[in-house]
Amino acid sequence: MLSTFGHLFRITTFGESHGGGVGVVVDGCPPGVPFSLSEVQAELDRRKPGQSILTTPRQEADQAHVLSGVFEGKTLGTPIAILVHNKDARPSSYESFKDMYRPSHADYTYQAKYGIRNWMGGGRASARETIGRVAGGAIALQVMRGHFPLEVVAWVESVHNVGPAVVDPLTVAKEQVDQNPVRCPDSEKAAEMFDAIDSARRSRDSVGGVICCVARGVPPGLGEPVFSKLEAELAKAMLSLPAVKGFEIGSGFQGTRLTGSEHNDPFYMGEDGRVRTQTNHSGGVQGGISNGEPLFFRIAFKPTATIGKVQKTVDESGQERELESRGRHDPCVLPRAVPIVEAMTHLVLVDAFLMQRARAGASFLPEKNAQR
Amino acid sequence: MLSTFGHLFRITTFGESHGGGVGVVVDGCPPGVPFSLSEVQAELDRRKPGQSILTTPRQEADQAHVLSGVFEGKTLGTPIAILVHNKDARPSSYESFKDMYRPSHADYTYQAKYGIRNWMGGGRASARETIGRVAGGAIALQVMRGHFPLEVVAWVESVHNVGPAVVDPLTVAKEQVDQNPVRCPDSEKAAEMFDAIDSARRSRDSVGGVICCVARGVPPGLGEPVFSKLEAELAKAMLSLPAVKGFEIGSGFQGTRLTGSEHNDPFYMGEDGRVRTQTNHSGGVQGGISNGEPLFFRIAFKPTATIGKVQKTVDESGQERELESRGRHDPCVLPRAVPIVEAMTHLVLVDAFLMQRARAGASFLPEKNAQR
Amino acid sequence: MLSTFGHLFRITTFGESHGGGVGVVVDGCPPGVPFSLSEVQAELDRRKPGQSILTTPRQEADQAHVLSGVFEGKTLGTPIAILVHNKDARPSSYESFKDMYRPSHADYTYQAKYGIRNWMGGGRASARETIGRVAGGAIALQVMRGHFPLEVVAWVESVHNVGPAVVDPLTVAKEQVDQNPVRCPDSEKAAEMFDAIDSARRSRDSVGGVICCVARGVPPGLGEPVFSKLEAELAKAMLSLPAVKGFEIGSGFQGTRLTGSEHNDPFYMGEDGRVRTQTNHSGGVQGGISNGEPLFFRIAFKPTATIGKVQKTVDESGQERELESRGRHDPCVLPRAVPIVEAMTHLVLVDAFLMQRARAGASFLPEKNAQR
Amino acid sequence: MLSTFGHLFRITTFGESHGGGVGVVVDGCPPGVPFSLSEVQAELDRRKPGQSILTTPRQEADQAHVLSGVFEGKTLGTPIAILVHNKDARPSSYESFKDMYRPSHADYTYQAKYGIRNWMGGGRASARETIGRVAGGAIALQVMRGHFPLEVVAWVESVHNVGPAVVDPLTVAKEQVDQNPVRCPDSEKAAEMFDAIDSARRSRDSVGGVICCVARGVPPGLGEPVFSKLEAELAKAMLSLPAVKGFEIGSGFQGTRLTGSEHNDPFYMGEDGRVRTQTNHSGGVQGGISNGEPLFFRIAFKPTATIGKVQKTVDESGQERELESRGRHDPCVLPRAVPIVEAMTHLVLVDAFLMQRARAGASFLPEKNAQR
Repeated sequence: MLSTFGHLFRITTFGESHGGGVGVVVDGCPPGVPFSLSEVQAELDRRKPGQSILTTPRQEADQAHVLSGVFEGKTLGTPIAILVHNKDARPSSYESFKDMYRPSHADYTYQAKYGIRNWMGGGRASARETIGRVAGGAIALQVMRGHFPLEVVAWVESVHNVGPAVVDPLTVAKEQVDQNPVRCPDSEKAAEMFDAIDSARRSRDSVGGVICCVARGVPPGLGEPVFSKLEAELAKAMLSLPAVKGFEIGSGFQGTRLTGSEHNDPFYMGEDGRVRTQTNHSGGVQGGISNGEPLFFRIAFKPTATIGKVQKTVDESGQERELESRGRHDPCVLPRAVPIVEAMTHLVLVDAFLMQRARAGASFLPEKNAQR
Repeated sequence: MLSTFGHLFRITTFGESHGGGVGVVVDGCPPGVPFSLSEVQAELDRRKPGQSILTTPRQEADQAHVLSGVFEGKTLGTPIAILVHNKDARPSSYESFKDMYRPSHADYTYQAKYGIRNWMGGGRASARETIGRVAGGAIALQVMRGHFPLEVVAWVESVHNVGPAVVDPLTVAKEQVDQNPVRCPDSEKAAEMFDAIDSARRSRDSVGGVICCVARGVPPGLGEPVFSKLEAELAKAMLSLPAVKGFEIGSGFQGTRLTGSEHNDPFYMGEDGRVRTQTNHSGGVQGGISNGEPLFFRIAFKPTATIGKVQKTVDESGQERELESRGRHDPCVLPRAVPIVEAMTHLVLVDAFLMQRARAGASFLPEKNAQR
Repeated sequence: MLSTFGHLFRITTFGESHGGGVGVVVDGCPPGVPFSLSEVQAELDRRKPGQSILTTPRQEADQAHVLSGVFEGKTLGTPIAILVHNKDARPSSYESFKDMYRPSHADYTYQAKYGIRNWMGGGRASARETIGRVAGGAIALQVMRGHFPLEVVAWVESVHNVGPAVVDPLTVAKEQVDQNPVRCPDSEKAAEMFDAIDSARRSRDSVGGVICCVARGVPPGLGEPVFSKLEAELAKAMLSLPAVKGFEIGSGFQGTRLTGSEHNDPFYMGEDGRVRTQTNHSGGVQGGISNGEPLFFRIAFKPTATIGKVQKTVDESGQERELESRGRHDPCVLPRAVPIVEAMTHLVLVDAFLMQRARAGASFLPEKNAQR
Repeated sequence: MLSTFGHLFRITTFGESHGGGVGVVVDGCPPGVPFSLSEVQAELDRRKPGQSILTTPRQEADQAHVLSGVFEGKTLGTPIAILVHNKDARPSSYESFKDMYRPSHADYTYQAKYGIRNWMGGGRASARETIGRVAGGAIALQVMRGHFPLEVVAWVESVHNVGPAVVDPLTVAKEQVDQNPVRCPDSEKAAEMFDAIDSARRSRDSVGGVICCVARGVPPGLGEPVFSKLEAELAKAMLSLPAVKGFEIGSGFQGTRLTGSEHNDPFYMGEDGRVRTQTNHSGGVQGGISNGEPLFFRIAFKPTATIGKVQKTVDESGQERELESRGRHDPCVLPRAVPIVEAMTHLVLVDAFLMQRARAGASFLPEKNAQR
């Protein structure tokens, strides 16, 4: 249940890692939006496996097929269904341990919940499920672009013990992020991260890390108090991603060590007549609503659960067993997670934007309010 | 919009800090559950102001009035409406700065979003809104109690620079938490925290900190992949609370420094024939679903935005001004936030429980599966 | 569960006929709307009991108390909670048949569903539950008024064998409807209906009938295909009312006897440059979306289930019994149902309006498109 | 927006009549249900065009492709995506009137709502959209079958002026319905209906009619008061179908001519110890909840809007024009609508069943309560 995300701009994803394919139905996309399939594909390409030696060698073109909702280059306002076929599935790799629960995977919990599971790969817990999110997020961006100058940029801040990278959230650009396979715009740290990941790969182990994300150009007024605060929806979005164990916005956990007088962000009038804050400990949200400053948040990814090393586990019959995985996998998910984090951010923002437009109608003109 | 939380067990809160009152409608509560108003009131009392010199001196009895949904000591299965009147509202305290945006408060963002706001106090962004959550959470616990031996315990782990407290999540009890006004079961640290908060109070400043929460006795199989993973709903629940800036579950941000072979939780067979894990870096969830181990998560609270010190800000007309707050407030929200965190945890769990029961019917018997 | 109606403009009702009170939380109301409590009260007065000898003698002032969401005469955009106390509850009237299932009431089905029920009156199945709907609908109208010239008018078309009344849906006004206690603008038929209802009352029996409703001034473009077609939401809204057994829009059941060439509504250009139809067999909707013509629909209400005559039934222990009801009741629900039908129509329309505004933003200007 | 139906068992449909295809994502299907694709296909075959001369000559195999959610013959509990390709689309048929609004079609209203539309066929308003509903409904039936002996049977009761057919709702079987192309189990009336439809076809006109539906074996206790009464959800489901203008349950509009003492259904104890009613004016629901008697309802379908006769209309530029349609169409939608009505009934019931299971858990055993 609940394979749908969003209130007004909704994505429903479907598909297992091994099966006919994976995809998404985007419902609630406004009509008349110029639709670029190549932009959607470009984001899928950033997410797809096989981009470098740091990622799983599984070969998937991840070609998006648009089945509906687009007509003569524009969105119709009707559901946009996008399908990506599974090509390079090798269920045989999983056969030898089909009755074993891989440690820190979802095998045991799916069995406990459903009483059945597709043992060929990760099923719905596979990162292939995120394909639909990336496609949906790319469309969400196309919707917002016509209304405010949004720039969402995520990057790898640390990998294992390497980091934090030194990056300026006010200026960092997607091109800088993509200039190396780690997706870290700090070249020196990126090189170290590359080595850390490669080293984990060679020792059949894995590593995790932290991704940062900034959203610039968000107009003030987005986010729904009380339960759907912008940060609450972002937290849910990020914790809904495989392998995520933490989320913090603005000052986050470190901010608990400041006093109120240090932490509060004093207001001042910007040169353009807009209300601004001198600091941004709030991370762009106050009371659950965007204040026009950049959104800034960090996400913790645990090390990939699939490793080649021998591990202790149990099987479905309750026997204790030893497991030696041979499924293809990423020694570190972070480089490929960057576009996914951006996509989820787009999805949260577009939903908040439509919600605010429902409330305020023509009197909400983000064009006039958003800061560049 | 969206003042409702939950899919099947839903709470809808209403009320501003200054107005007729605040309250909640609990919809979807199963019928026939023995209802204890005194338990509800006990939790409200843990949350209410004026418990010690560490909390706001605002005097509110926060007496719960049940308007519907209960009959002859049991729930009817119909909406349970609970109302708490506002008594000690002093809007005059706010009059002098009614047109000023208090730094790091929601004044500016509410104005940007709604074009109007109740300047008498915090409106919906006030912590008084959480009264409905606490009442709803207390009822949620009563629902689950008949089905599995749930124990949710939250405590203050750190305040400003004091901490972390040394606490064993496997055994810590609510009574230990409540033995001091800080709600930290480590007495030594609690004393230091008390001083830190009192010191902030005396200097008209404020402090933040970290709350830990453990949920023991959760049966395996709760949580809805993909988008409503248990940790995703918990993250949303916590980030929807005022002043929260971060959430992490299990190994969290620290876990990003482990390798996969260190981080993975090996499975073994427990003495009672249940599948267990040797470590709990996962924090009780795998693939978004509970695995029967204790849920464990941490929440970062920023220092209270309301402080007595003079601050720079702007007013609605765009003038730069100086603000000297005189509203009553807590120098540290954490002691009173403990029952709120527990309540939100109850709400997330009861919803996941009902969802799983919808799916699995009589074949889901948490009584048989939950670990004590 | 599911005591909430609407997607963006949502009402959640609570309360049993016998208990602390009944009420509503209106969530999603746009901010800054001038709020008239007297208009809300006026609609509650049209619904309240004791208006004439045709209605139940239960004495209820049905005074609305606004607990939140309104500030200085305007809506805040936050939840508006409205409470109406129950005053003249006489549970003792119900005591003698508390274990009997009243025929065609919800006693048996509530017991089957919940295993428990409030036997003091109708519980949630009582018409008192509709108080919250009427209050919510009155607010919905205040929201729409600022945007398009909506006029929703319902009236009693037939009672038992009396009717149909002759009424012009293009011109009928609320004042005409309210000029007699039956709420039928055809005075002659109204007199006959009055006699029919009074006759049923005197013989301790009851009668039903048909209510018509027209909504003029609805802009084209409201209603969400596929599943939330405007007529689908209206049908749900009406069938969610106690005692309703049928709904038809436009040509309805009679229209099945026309051919397509007779039934189709030819388009032409109106004098004001708007697209119009020469006939309105469609009842104002095509493909689930309003076309700018008046919405027109009819609703069948069965005769009141509560009657004074002796009836055969069974009790909770499975014994066959005879029941002689003494609860106060309306011999005909239709006169009091008129404002309820209008309220539900307002609620459906405001929700469709906000949804369309979310989609289309500033390019949806109902002011320019709605026909008077 | 809102292309999703259902709360726990949810279908999301996608696709236009002319485009890559149409389909459905079924979310919330319980796991471990034996899955029969051939049953799904059999229902699609009952719905597909080209079954007889009474239906559109468009040639579509309507072959269902299952993309996900099924594994080794059972449902996984994950989303089941089903795709049907569009084969025999002939957009050129529509080209000559692409800028004209076909009377009583959704062309004008889609344009008013979206500012854009796929003029190649009916877009989302096409009956092809219902393919996803039929597939979803067939799966819903497979879910319920394991729990209660549900039999949902719909049939054509009248066509234009022919009817009503004489059919016993307590015994009528699907095989009887399918024994003629009209899908009316009264052979004599069926022959007359055939002639009426064929006559309309030959005169390039169309006809409508009434479909009856009965659901036997529904356990007591299904349906969610207040707003999601079983009859309210059924009404919404039916009015969400193309061409539907009316819905009535039980005594419906005719029942308004009875008195309460005639209309009330007296309770008695059945031979099997179950509470029964002597009559069924209620149509199987009381207070929005099933009472164990058969559900019985009727649905009015207007004559098909697409006709071959010349019609007056306007075009997008506001010119008055004459339209002579050449799209392929059904002269009467009722025969093909029968499986669609059944499917929507299944979808409403399965959702109510899961909701009740969430509420009542193991104490709700429909197996014990449902009447055959």
